[in-house]
Amino acid sequence: MVKPTKRESWSLGELAAALDVELKGDPARQVYGLATLGSAGDGQLSFLANPLYRGQLAQTRASAVILQPQFVDECPTAVLIADNPYLVYSRVSHFFDHRPKPDEGVHSTAFVSGSAVLGAGCRIGPNAVIESGAVLGQNVEVGAGCVIGANCIIGKDCLFHANVTLYHGVKVGERCTFHSGVVVGADGFGFANEQGRWKKIAQLGAVTIGNDVDVGANTTIDRGALQDTVIGNGVILDNQIQIAHNVEIGEGTAIAGCTGIAGSTKIGKYCTIAGAVGIAGHLEIADRVHLTMRSAITKSVTEPGSYSSGTAMSTTAQWRKNAARFRHLDDMARKLNRLEKQLQALQSDKQ
Amino acid sequence: MVKPTKRESWSLGELAAALDVELKGDPARQVYGLATLGSAGDGQLSFLANPLYRGQLAQTRASAVILQPQFVDECPTAVLIADNPYLVYSRVSHFFDHRPKPDEGVHSTAFVSGSAVLGAGCRIGPNAVIESGAVLGQNVEVGAGCVIGANCIIGKDCLFHANVTLYHGVKVGERCTFHSGVVVGADGFGFANEQGRWKKIAQLGAVTIGNDVDVGANTTIDRGALQDTVIGNGVILDNQIQIAHNVEIGEGTAIAGCTGIAGSTKIGKYCTIAGAVGIAGHLEIADRVHLTMRSAITKSVTEPGSYSSGTAMSTTAQWRKNAARFRHLDDMARKLNRLEKQLQALQSDKQ
Amino acid sequence: MVKPTKRESWSLGELAAALDVELKGDPARQVYGLATLGSAGDGQLSFLANPLYRGQLAQTRASAVILQPQFVDECPTAVLIADNPYLVYSRVSHFFDHRPKPDEGVHSTAFVSGSAVLGAGCRIGPNAVIESGAVLGQNVEVGAGCVIGANCIIGKDCLFHANVTLYHGVKVGERCTFHSGVVVGADGFGFANEQGRWKKIAQLGAVTIGNDVDVGANTTIDRGALQDTVIGNGVILDNQIQIAHNVEIGEGTAIAGCTGIAGSTKIGKYCTIAGAVGIAGHLEIADRVHLTMRSAITKSVTEPGSYSSGTAMSTTAQWRKNAARFRHLDDMARKLNRLEKQLQALQSDKQ
Repeated sequence: MVKPTKRESWSLGELAAALDVELKGDPARQVYGLATLGSAGDGQLSFLANPLYRGQLAQTRASAVILQPQFVDECPTAVLIADNPYLVYSRVSHFFDHRPKPDEGVHSTAFVSGSAVLGAGCRIGPNAVIESGAVLGQNVEVGAGCVIGANCIIGKDCLFHANVTLYHGVKVGERCTFHSGVVVGADGFGFANEQGRWKKIAQLGAVTIGNDVDVGANTTIDRGALQDTVIGNGVILDNQIQIAHNVEIGEGTAIAGCTGIAGSTKIGKYCTIAGAVGIAGHLEIADRVHLTMRSAITKSVTEPGSYSSGTAMSTTAQWRKNAARFRHLDDMARKLNRLEKQLQALQSDKQ
Repeated sequence: MVKPTKRESWSLGELAAALDVELKGDPARQVYGLATLGSAGDGQLSFLANPLYRGQLAQTRASAVILQPQFVDECPTAVLIADNPYLVYSRVSHFFDHRPKPDEGVHSTAFVSGSAVLGAGCRIGPNAVIESGAVLGQNVEVGAGCVIGANCIIGKDCLFHANVTLYHGVKVGERCTFHSGVVVGADGFGFANEQGRWKKIAQLGAVTIGNDVDVGANTTIDRGALQDTVIGNGVILDNQIQIAHNVEIGEGTAIAGCTGIAGSTKIGKYCTIAGAVGIAGHLEIADRVHLTMRSAITKSVTEPGSYSSGTAMSTTAQWRKNAARFRHLDDMARKLNRLEKQLQALQSDKQ
Repeated sequence: MVKPTKRESWSLGELAAALDVELKGDPARQVYGLATLGSAGDGQLSFLANPLYRGQLAQTRASAVILQPQFVDECPTAVLIADNPYLVYSRVSHFFDHRPKPDEGVHSTAFVSGSAVLGAGCRIGPNAVIESGAVLGQNVEVGAGCVIGANCIIGKDCLFHANVTLYHGVKVGERCTFHSGVVVGADGFGFANEQGRWKKIAQLGAVTIGNDVDVGANTTIDRGALQDTVIGNGVILDNQIQIAHNVEIGEGTAIAGCTGIAGSTKIGKYCTIAGAVGIAGHLEIADRVHLTMRSAITKSVTEPGSYSSGTAMSTTAQWRKNAARFRHLDDMARKLNRLEKQLQALQSDKQ
């Protein structure tokens, strides 16, 4: 398999070789970018992953399409044949990613503590700060304005986009990505109450993050009170997620934006948690659990499956009436049970 | 119309001229600030926009009040007469805004790439970073610690408060404001799953933002997967909003804080979306739709109007009983239907 | 009482003296850290605060345990005897907190305006920015990348972790902590609408923060429209909270992560507000109110007590059925009332 390198365009033959898929069409044809089936034009590659878009195939103006074998005959243009076109799309997308990187080495405006250690090939952007004792593996990229706290240990090939903040002592595995505004290792929200006054509890744990973890913009992951907050290998986190102290998230779990997880909750492996879910503290969520959008999870979930809460949308006028009734739902249930008994009494009288 | 300039105080005559409204009172009277009807004192200007506060008019100690014509006789002090006092207040508020700005030019601690282009009158604050190929129009202000990514194109008169982050290739129109902590252009949350492992999809689109857009603190707007995420002209976004990849927001729409919009959803024009609303992905919301606070929107909305979900607040004790019944609401509905039939049977027997 | 200083280990005798508690055990025994009862090993101190963990006491391998007097006999190791072990734990936690600090003085890469004033003992980290006219009290620590806006007034002993942003004119009391990504003083979301166009209202107020306030990562507190947004003494705020313009929060109130409070709402003293609560604007919440997780508060709360909204979690399959019925809850209630009347009619007929 040919190792792909960044370039402006690819021939279909090169792509087929790099992706290890079969090509039907002219191997010399050049493509320079990716687009959806409906919008792709000359020189662009597309893909059909969702059967809903199959109808667009016959009219596509793409130069080539990544397709499952059974659709090849419907396609008017060149085809890269793949059992899982979406997966092949995910791989080829990186060939056309021209994100600029900071130069190798330390930018003249960055500050790297004398006691920090940078692996070969690191790129430290303008005005970034690497504090004392931090150790970065090879090829770590630290964007402009990032702050990597004292004694952090960062594995190789990690990418910190601009303005990420890591507090001291955070441990990160290899190949992780942190988006702008992420804060890792801020104090957990721990206070004791002394006659109405909140007394801060020093948060002595840190955060341990596995390999291949992706953390979205403005997401926060707090340090543990005594032990570490732990994010497993291959976890993917969207934007604006809040992960409180001592939470543990199992391998391969995906969490969508705006979800919040309260302290000491353990999330299993391979869970998929939708957006804006709220999970209370000190719970355990089993492996392979799915939580739908905006669910409020206040009890542990012990079995795989899908869980939900909330109410469905109505017009506000209808909703007002229904929501007003909800406030008397227990009364309604009692009345219903009473009527049932009275009706049974009437029925037996009649017999 | 006199062009207002920043100064410590204004005479009422100058204000009337600058605002193009009629003055009743001494045009030489000086005012130096704005305050609410109830709190305004000597030298302060106030306004009556909400009829609820009409009762405060007779006792106001303001030096002048912006009023609709029908209330002029109730006012014990000078009056600026306007059909829409709130709108006039919004205009005059800028006369008394003394926010300090960075000096014109590039601060000595900022880093501006040699290939970036700055229009005349730009102000680049301390430790700001402008990366390669970025193009800023005239009079753009970039606060301390901001990072403007490579190849961004920024229209004239934009204002970036401190510590804003734009990724590469973001396009911004004219007269936009970005508050601190905003992140525009981070990767959309796109991954393909290969046997339990999440494979990142490079996000090749960017973000296109129109003119006169206002983005609140810590709001995030992700870049598109293939095409751009698009924010229309005149859109106003409050704090801590999450806008996922390929979302499109129509002209003039206003969105309050903590709302999240999942990927590829299209929001119409002139919508008003309240706080902490969650909108699922791949939906279409029509023009002029209002969504009330904390609604969960899981289906497209095709007609203008107001929509809601959720339940109304109770004491926790009452709520627990009602929420427990909600878990059996379908059973209740079935029982109700059964009782109805039994009752009808009894009634027909009787006849 | 001995004033504690930072050191690697403490003898139990020193700890008992510093904490002013009674020791049962060898005063020369050294401890170097804190851990939970279940995980503590040799050289570690633990505590029993939650009766749920009492069962772990007999097997603990901690070198000493902070305990209430009645449990002393169940403990196999040394004991620090305290009526409120959790409170003593909160105090002793700081003895073992080895967070590195920036050096005293101004880091060479920081920018401090010539017109800013720094009290004795201030520590200004790398690439931090202190703008014109700002006044910092003694021993204020400003982390890397922070921006302290023009004319801010900061009391002594405040701690700003890395990448905090304060806009101009923010007033902060003494001993406050601000975590990374916090934004204080961004513009409130105030606009007047002129024929479909949003016209920005300059936000002329600022933010006033009392003493001993703790603000979590990525929390935002907007400046007031005319008067200040006010955070009372001893308020503790978790991560990712949104506090809109002119909100007032009373002394000693605690708010958990992801909660949002809309404009001009007044929260009382000593309230405890759980995570992801949404509170509408222009409300008043009484003192000592508790709001449970994810509640939507759309009316003022005039009495102390606990309040809630929402529905409990079910499997998605069950939830779908119940949520579908919720959309017809008003119809159900009407039918129930109708059946009740019909049944009463049948019953009276029978008599």
